[in-house]
Amino acid sequence: MKRYLDIVIIVLSLCFQSGWSQETQIVEDFKPSTMNQSEKQFPQVNSQRRVRASIAAPNANKVQLDIGGVKYDMRKDANGVWTGESNLQDEGFHYYQLNIDGASVPDPGSLYFYGAGRWGSGIEIPSRDQEFFELKNVPHGLVIENIYFSKLINSFRRCFIYTPAGYYENTKARYPVLYLQHGSFEDETGWSSQGKANLILDNLIASKKATPMIIVMDNGYAFKPQSNEAKEKKERPESIFEEVLITEVIPMIDAKFRTIANRENRAIAGLSMGANQTMRIMMNNLETFSYYGGFSGTANYPSTDPLDASTFLDGKYKDGSALNKKIKLFWLGLGTKEPAPFPKSVGAFRTMLEQQGIKYDYYESPETAHEWLTWRRCLYQFAFKLFK
Amino acid sequence: MKRYLDIVIIVLSLCFQSGWSQETQIVEDFKPSTMNQSEKQFPQVNSQRRVRASIAAPNANKVQLDIGGVKYDMRKDANGVWTGESNLQDEGFHYYQLNIDGASVPDPGSLYFYGAGRWGSGIEIPSRDQEFFELKNVPHGLVIENIYFSKLINSFRRCFIYTPAGYYENTKARYPVLYLQHGSFEDETGWSSQGKANLILDNLIASKKATPMIIVMDNGYAFKPQSNEAKEKKERPESIFEEVLITEVIPMIDAKFRTIANRENRAIAGLSMGANQTMRIMMNNLETFSYYGGFSGTANYPSTDPLDASTFLDGKYKDGSALNKKIKLFWLGLGTKEPAPFPKSVGAFRTMLEQQGIKYDYYESPETAHEWLTWRRCLYQFAFKLFK
Repeated sequence: MKRYLDIVIIVLSLCFQSGWSQETQIVEDFKPSTMNQSEKQFPQVNSQRRVRASIAAPNANKVQLDIGGVKYDMRKDANGVWTGESNLQDEGFHYYQLNIDGASVPDPGSLYFYGAGRWGSGIEIPSRDQEFFELKNVPHGLVIENIYFSKLINSFRRCFIYTPAGYYENTKARYPVLYLQHGSFEDETGWSSQGKANLILDNLIASKKATPMIIVMDNGYAFKPQSNEAKEKKERPESIFEEVLITEVIPMIDAKFRTIANRENRAIAGLSMGANQTMRIMMNNLETFSYYGGFSGTANYPSTDPLDASTFLDGKYKDGSALNKKIKLFWLGLGTKEPAPFPKSVGAFRTMLEQQGIKYDYYESPETAHEWLTWRRCLYQFAFKLFK
Repeated sequence: MKRYLDIVIIVLSLCFQSGWSQETQIVEDFKPSTMNQSEKQFPQVNSQRRVRASIAAPNANKVQLDIGGVKYDMRKDANGVWTGESNLQDEGFHYYQLNIDGASVPDPGSLYFYGAGRWGSGIEIPSRDQEFFELKNVPHGLVIENIYFSKLINSFRRCFIYTPAGYYENTKARYPVLYLQHGSFEDETGWSSQGKANLILDNLIASKKATPMIIVMDNGYAFKPQSNEAKEKKERPESIFEEVLITEVIPMIDAKFRTIANRENRAIAGLSMGANQTMRIMMNNLETFSYYGGFSGTANYPSTDPLDASTFLDGKYKDGSALNKKIKLFWLGLGTKEPAPFPKSVGAFRTMLEQQGIKYDYYESPETAHEWLTWRRCLYQFAFKLFK
């Protein structure tokens, strides 16, 4: 028996050393990332889901690849080209940067995305299920950049609008609308760029799994103009995103596009901060929306405390049976690798829903954290169920 | 007399030393560039049209600002922040980058633009006449991203489409179309980003100076698929942009949008390489287009030799009086500071037009080179005259 145990231990320790640990050997099957600029060879990704970056910096002292909160030292060759690899990354899309002698800069090889509060590099680690957001030879919808002036904010804003394939050819058809929001330190560009919302819907609609719909992606940062006095005192500006969305954006969209302008044909969803925001907007405007999607976030964030339905959001969740009649779909999603406080915070919210007898759908994205593959999957699962 | 001359010489030399020369003192009225990422303080521009860049790179040996083909050394302060200024720049938009110990990278402070064959930093030097491309509180058209599959190229391509304000509200109105092309090492994003084509048309249309029109901005790089043998031999691929535009893009646009689908309501224009391409397409397809605009380029590029109308472009310019009847507008534009061979090359072409008695409009953009302010001004002047 002792002998068998010894063998098991030896086998396990070999596994840890060779295959399971981050210290494993690097497999030399790197390919250029699909998020690279045209014809750029680096960064690359291998079958282990490592990232390899490379940059010419002949006079640098130290160059690092900065991804997933870890900085990896790169090595300099005789030509002054630095190359280095990360440990194993999760499947999906990650923001990253290079660090050259202390300067954090975008990688000149990658395309650029807005996230983490800046335009910077992004990389795609192939995922098992990526087929659902791939660019395929199916009819494609259009993504429209719409600049508008907000009287409430007294400045220009921008939203992007997805119109499904056929919108321009079927000039009589009217469509339901999903209002879809980004997360914190992101903006209105995220969902149709790294979020692949347009391709996800193109594929769903082409395979007749989703109802053709319009998607509106606005910027969730919308603040009431401040007096100079308030600015000087550095007072926190008041968010008026709900007011902007309800009184400016929705009327503009209904005037400009062939929407079906009623609550039965209007959904609202968001990720992280956007889930929090849109949950509040949903509950304050049940005459406007009948479908809700919360991806990696709920309105109790960042609290993980048990919720009291009689007081939480002014008691909006008190009457479960009334909500069950009113709301057509209340949908929540989360990645299995999300960090604190998301699992417990969303968990506390779910417990409250269950205590109130409120029906909801819950989806878990396997092996993803608080990142875009979680949200792409959430959109896919959620859009599937809308307007049916 | 000698005394007066001496004074004149002293005054002139003072002028050269203090105000006229590049060695003049730096005026400390720098402001963040309008092309910066939200809330980023650098890069900045001053009233002299100098660029000041700044980046934290505490362990770097040498950091440079690389703009207009010149690298300017930056200075390191006690906190490891490097700052430096360029000499005087032309008004308008310029691509630039930073160089950190030999690594050429985008500036993390700027927005990014596709040009010079890469996504990278751009900066805007205020111009006297910038009012014509500013974002104003006028009705705004939309910019639409359209993904399509080209059978001729056997791959996905993308074009951007500008629809004028009112297109979505006036559901019966039909519009003329301008096909507008970018230059070499640029792509389909240029005209509606650094080119400001949408804002230029918004402003022109709002002030009733231009006829409301649709603009289609495609990618001018379109090559016939090559055999593996040809690829191995590194044969130059054959451009089939004309065929893609005429047989795929125009029918797609006419099917999808409410165009007036005839030659009287179709214009074609381009900048630099795009001027060369679209001039050939215009002359090969006079049944398709009746307006032509060539910005900083003609089809004889890079030659500056005199042109023989009986042989140039297969004699397409031979019959001047027939062309004068057929073409509604033949328009050429050039910046006064354009480098060789543009002035002489365009000049040789104009001489040929004049010899053939072909009517054309000619515009010179004051104090600009082969850059986007030249092309924005050209679009403004050209669009003004279209479809009238």
